[in-house]
Amino acid sequence: MTLINENYLKLQGSYLFAEIARRVSAFKKENPSADVISLGIGDVTQPLAPTVIDALHKAVDEMADAKTFRGYGPEQGYAFLREAIVRTIYAPRGAQIAADEIFVSDGAKSDCGNIQEIFGNDNIIAITDPVYPVYLDTNVMAGRTGFYKEATGIFEKVVYMPCTAENDFVPEFPKEHVDMIYICCPNNPTGTTLSKKQLAEWVQYAKTNNAIILYDAAYSYYITQSDVPRTIYEIDGARDVAIEFRSFSKTAGFTGMRCGYTVIPKTVFGYTKSGKKQALNPLWNRRHTTKFNGTAYIVQRAAEAVLSPEGQKQIMETINYYMDNALTIRKGLDDVGIKYFGGINAPYIWLKAPNGMKSWEFFDKLLHEANIVGTPGAGFGPSGEGYFRLTAFGDKENTLKAVNRIKTNLKI
Amino acid sequence: MTLINENYLKLQGSYLFAEIARRVSAFKKENPSADVISLGIGDVTQPLAPTVIDALHKAVDEMADAKTFRGYGPEQGYAFLREAIVRTIYAPRGAQIAADEIFVSDGAKSDCGNIQEIFGNDNIIAITDPVYPVYLDTNVMAGRTGFYKEATGIFEKVVYMPCTAENDFVPEFPKEHVDMIYICCPNNPTGTTLSKKQLAEWVQYAKTNNAIILYDAAYSYYITQSDVPRTIYEIDGARDVAIEFRSFSKTAGFTGMRCGYTVIPKTVFGYTKSGKKQALNPLWNRRHTTKFNGTAYIVQRAAEAVLSPEGQKQIMETINYYMDNALTIRKGLDDVGIKYFGGINAPYIWLKAPNGMKSWEFFDKLLHEANIVGTPGAGFGPSGEGYFRLTAFGDKENTLKAVNRIKTNLKI
Repeated sequence: MTLINENYLKLQGSYLFAEIARRVSAFKKENPSADVISLGIGDVTQPLAPTVIDALHKAVDEMADAKTFRGYGPEQGYAFLREAIVRTIYAPRGAQIAADEIFVSDGAKSDCGNIQEIFGNDNIIAITDPVYPVYLDTNVMAGRTGFYKEATGIFEKVVYMPCTAENDFVPEFPKEHVDMIYICCPNNPTGTTLSKKQLAEWVQYAKTNNAIILYDAAYSYYITQSDVPRTIYEIDGARDVAIEFRSFSKTAGFTGMRCGYTVIPKTVFGYTKSGKKQALNPLWNRRHTTKFNGTAYIVQRAAEAVLSPEGQKQIMETINYYMDNALTIRKGLDDVGIKYFGGINAPYIWLKAPNGMKSWEFFDKLLHEANIVGTPGAGFGPSGEGYFRLTAFGDKENTLKAVNRIKTNLKI
Repeated sequence: MTLINENYLKLQGSYLFAEIARRVSAFKKENPSADVISLGIGDVTQPLAPTVIDALHKAVDEMADAKTFRGYGPEQGYAFLREAIVRTIYAPRGAQIAADEIFVSDGAKSDCGNIQEIFGNDNIIAITDPVYPVYLDTNVMAGRTGFYKEATGIFEKVVYMPCTAENDFVPEFPKEHVDMIYICCPNNPTGTTLSKKQLAEWVQYAKTNNAIILYDAAYSYYITQSDVPRTIYEIDGARDVAIEFRSFSKTAGFTGMRCGYTVIPKTVFGYTKSGKKQALNPLWNRRHTTKFNGTAYIVQRAAEAVLSPEGQKQIMETINYYMDNALTIRKGLDDVGIKYFGGINAPYIWLKAPNGMKSWEFFDKLLHEANIVGTPGAGFGPSGEGYFRLTAFGDKENTLKAVNRIKTNLKI
């Protein structure tokens, strides 16, 4: 009798986006002439940069000729890309990261999900709440959590760190001991960030408590304020306690291209139960080379083009386009007096549903009164209740139109 | 104190290819003028098919325009590709596989490695010996095995099924109960296959013993004999017990492109410890959607082109090119009286080292006398000792030259 991994049965259904689709579909059936605009899009909409397109065509042509054809590449990524990452992302910020501390992959989602494999099953994980669900779900699958408690909306054995308006979206240090701390900064879904000082306190906390920080920097290119760290390795001591995940997805429109990377400094250690130190870099190297066979050559050439001076200029134009949308949304919310967070260092605006409404109540109100779709905050964790996420990934015209409707049609 | 996954410490070093490189490098230093030819290449060398190149350029252009740009796709793969797989691979062989039983990925290595996650940790795995090391290593990492025993070269708690000349490379049914049976057919490294009748016996065995067959068909396009199944789903009853892995890597030169897929019929079940049946298709769907974000759109368009009538014709030309090399090698070995297996339905020739030599002894002899590099069979498992792998992936001219050297220089 082949046994299944019963931890999978603890997972909750991925209810959020299915339920949104159901309600939108029902609304459209009742109101066939309504022009529904989505401000809930979690995906980029603008095309790849011209220099990336050129690099792709060139790499494709290389694959057409035996003399320049590339088969298996290094699982960890080609040197040309790992070195470009060092040169473009880390060195300019004074972060001491070497090429062999970088592991190129098919995206930050895979890495964020797979990283937990190299850790012991008895570790206690801590997650900010609300948060991107992959951190939690993959630990549930691995058996690092207990069961889900319907009444509270939380999994046993997991330390939830609420991030709400009350604490200015800065998680408090856990009272109990934790081993693996997931931090997403800028945060998805709240769009909020930690300052350098605040992140430095987390690095110190991890050092003092012998914990590891799993730092998701997927949205770092959206940061506009100088006091927000672009990488955790700007912080002194982070090389000893932090693993960083980065992505070309939201940075360069690569959601359909699939390329990200994980940084594991050689100075980050875990322990065996008997207390023996073990560097995590070679453990992840073993994982990466055994269960992964490298990112497509042509995609790595595209990523390299993103990191070129011309590529950097072009992707910033697109990011600025999205951030103009964020500004449009923020101004609109200001005008109607809806309180919000984020939207300055991230493409996400996290609004507080007015009049103490719950997330799904506001979803229905926004859909029915303004014909706008967003994402209920409760879908990202129990502390997301009463909040609502709008995104800046739509096109400019639709975003303007949507905001005008919020101003004229929404009854607050 | 953050604990590590101590199962990783049970793994043996990936010694094989490093040791080959070391010996070749030492030889070249001593013999700088020697023209060393590798018949050990496990990677394709010929370029992508013209129709694949065209599809890639077209897809890249789509990514340059907001109107045709693609962001996140379905994690399971685009319908156009999943349907093309049904139409081209399964339907023509009478195999009843539906599009939603197919999960497109970044390659069969990832899938072969990740599949074990959906299974319970108490399952007993069975592997043929010798075999592609990913099946075993990923189960070691998951803690499904005991420790490695230096004396025998095997891991505790794993059932090894020797495949040697003595049993004509057909594994015997295990005497003890096993739950997860890995079969690679055509086999890497031996190049041998099972007949339809033999595979049908394995399907029956799995049914009778409530086991699951994990069937790696990565080399199925190299099959030339009609009695060898192209997919396990040609076999009656396989839909109830088998998961199949397939790849575009060796099929269409995609080793640097990264695309494969896994088939999990909805009729394959595992069990909870309390004996409740659980379909595996939704478990894998959950794994795939939580830890993976789809294969690059442009790569999926390339794979679709492989499956077009023109694509199928073009890839067969390249496969025939490699199989001509296999024939060259086989004829050469016949001429010198070295016994070998495989090379008829696979690009691998598995020779028995002459005069009872050990694998590494023959490696040194072949390198020194004929300046040819191959792969010692002992590197693929204890039953590979005394065998040696040659591959047909080199270019034609070098393969001919190498075989002539075997005939003229090798002292047997």
